[in-house]
Amino acid sequence: MIKVGLNGYGTIGKRVADAVLKNSRFQLVGIVKYTPDYSSKMAFKKGINIYVPPEKWRDFESQGVTPKGTIQEFLEESSIIIDASPSGKGFANLSLYKAAGKPAIFQGGEKPEVAELSFSTYCNYDEAVGRKYLRVVSCNTTGLLRILCVLHKEFNVKRARVLVIRRGADPKEDARGPINSIKLESVEDVSHHGKDAMLVLPNVKIISQAVVVPTTLMHVQYLDVEVATPVIKEQVTEVLSRYARILLVDPKKTGLDSTSKLIEAARDFLRSRNDIYENVVFENSILVSGNSISLIQAIHQESIVVPENMDALYAVAGVKLPLEKVVEETDKLLGIGGLKDVF
Amino acid sequence: MIKVGLNGYGTIGKRVADAVLKNSRFQLVGIVKYTPDYSSKMAFKKGINIYVPPEKWRDFESQGVTPKGTIQEFLEESSIIIDASPSGKGFANLSLYKAAGKPAIFQGGEKPEVAELSFSTYCNYDEAVGRKYLRVVSCNTTGLLRILCVLHKEFNVKRARVLVIRRGADPKEDARGPINSIKLESVEDVSHHGKDAMLVLPNVKIISQAVVVPTTLMHVQYLDVEVATPVIKEQVTEVLSRYARILLVDPKKTGLDSTSKLIEAARDFLRSRNDIYENVVFENSILVSGNSISLIQAIHQESIVVPENMDALYAVAGVKLPLEKVVEETDKLLGIGGLKDVF
Repeated sequence: MIKVGLNGYGTIGKRVADAVLKNSRFQLVGIVKYTPDYSSKMAFKKGINIYVPPEKWRDFESQGVTPKGTIQEFLEESSIIIDASPSGKGFANLSLYKAAGKPAIFQGGEKPEVAELSFSTYCNYDEAVGRKYLRVVSCNTTGLLRILCVLHKEFNVKRARVLVIRRGADPKEDARGPINSIKLESVEDVSHHGKDAMLVLPNVKIISQAVVVPTTLMHVQYLDVEVATPVIKEQVTEVLSRYARILLVDPKKTGLDSTSKLIEAARDFLRSRNDIYENVVFENSILVSGNSISLIQAIHQESIVVPENMDALYAVAGVKLPLEKVVEETDKLLGIGGLKDVF
Repeated sequence: MIKVGLNGYGTIGKRVADAVLKNSRFQLVGIVKYTPDYSSKMAFKKGINIYVPPEKWRDFESQGVTPKGTIQEFLEESSIIIDASPSGKGFANLSLYKAAGKPAIFQGGEKPEVAELSFSTYCNYDEAVGRKYLRVVSCNTTGLLRILCVLHKEFNVKRARVLVIRRGADPKEDARGPINSIKLESVEDVSHHGKDAMLVLPNVKIISQAVVVPTTLMHVQYLDVEVATPVIKEQVTEVLSRYARILLVDPKKTGLDSTSKLIEAARDFLRSRNDIYENVVFENSILVSGNSISLIQAIHQESIVVPENMDALYAVAGVKLPLEKVVEETDKLLGIGGLKDVF
């Protein structure tokens, strides 16, 4: 079993921890925590090892959480690190990992220079195999790239224009807005998503812009894609429906026409933490005319990068399996595919 | 096994269905559905029998959902009905149940006259045993009565003033507000919760008022209670901590100081649908001075009545168990108590 250490136990970290625990190829060494809050206690009661800075040891013990070791010991015991620490902190951690000689997987909140390669499974898995440092692109970029790379492989995408309608905050974030505004994400002309996607898919011209709205559930993206030759809608839906991580939803049949209803369906399906690992593409929104394909999709910001983090582990660990098998294993363990039956 | 039929498969109904499926004393006959939406399909795939109006039979079949029978057959096959249909519809259904000679449990959205007794476990279980028609009081009233009856038993409550800060809509309800307002729930002087609570606890003067705020997660209640003799805070917390359905949370230790963080904790604890069956009382908010006790608590509107619905089944079915054992069984099957360890 490959020993995986998880630095960071927030929105992404706790989900990746659960995914690693489900996968018998990997052993979760433990997690790094800085404060003995409820999530430390829950992880501890679950049997997850907690590593802490030496000066915090007593704080944890006084809350009934006995640490397994220090951060130094965490680094020694891990063969691969997944860094899911807050944006920017991963870059600061890179020197630690280098000093300990450990490969690491970073998140999209870090600058691209943190790693050798920015990664998205459907786009560049083969290129990622055997790398020492990977960066899984952010939630919106992951959602965007899944669609673009799938369409690109089939139809040769020339350019894409994207509008991202971002959720204002995550569900637990009770100090972040906006609560009553539609806000430009940036005062620059474009958002980072397009540029970030082009790191992974450099031959397609991708331009994105973004607004932020008062919701916590999911992002929504509008994509307008130009392909090399004329296509028809049936070809597009057929291609998209081949991929387990893309879920076509017909609002007319299912009644699912909003992010809140999608999340309700994930709750009803008893997905842990109501996670939706799949891009949810509203089938009615797919418009095809000549070389142009547009669509609207919802992206669950909290969980969409979990499958790609697991795939990244396979790549860095050098697991000898072809892309299709890696994706199949990850998807099976996360239950991806199950929702297709009921939607 | 006692055969339980569930009429209504919305917010409460689907949760009660899952609870009945976990309890080997009861057999879920099936559910009544009127439209073949995603929730019908999910229930069907789960193996739950679907009963439909005859004229809708084909609509269901065309969506791949084969009904088990008609509503008439549903009534015949059920020994007890739980009615969780939309507010007001339960009252209309009463005549159906009477004609079929079947006992029934209704929800708090119905007028009290729908049943022989308005019910709340900690208050009047013994009085409910053997009744043919019970009404489980609404979510806010259930949350309120749990605290009042527990305090009443111990300290003899004289009067209570309550302010309910209601969530505007349930998470899935994307057409209901307010989205940017704090609204009086009613143009009357008081809200219905106090009157409703007094149906169950008639010797205590309970006055409630309510405002509605833009959130979907939980209600919050402020209670100001006058008891017969002076008490101290330690007595109050000791009494509240005896009951599994009351969860004392210390925001300082746990970091849990908002409804969004509580729901996040329920997600992390992998509660199905992030349900919180317990009253969450913020420990720091308990103020005690002489005969006066005040506190702030959060109430998960979607799931708080599920345990009381299960207890009501025991009462109507005449299961020969004392109150404590009934509560113990219900709590165990729902996993109530587990969160105490990590909070």
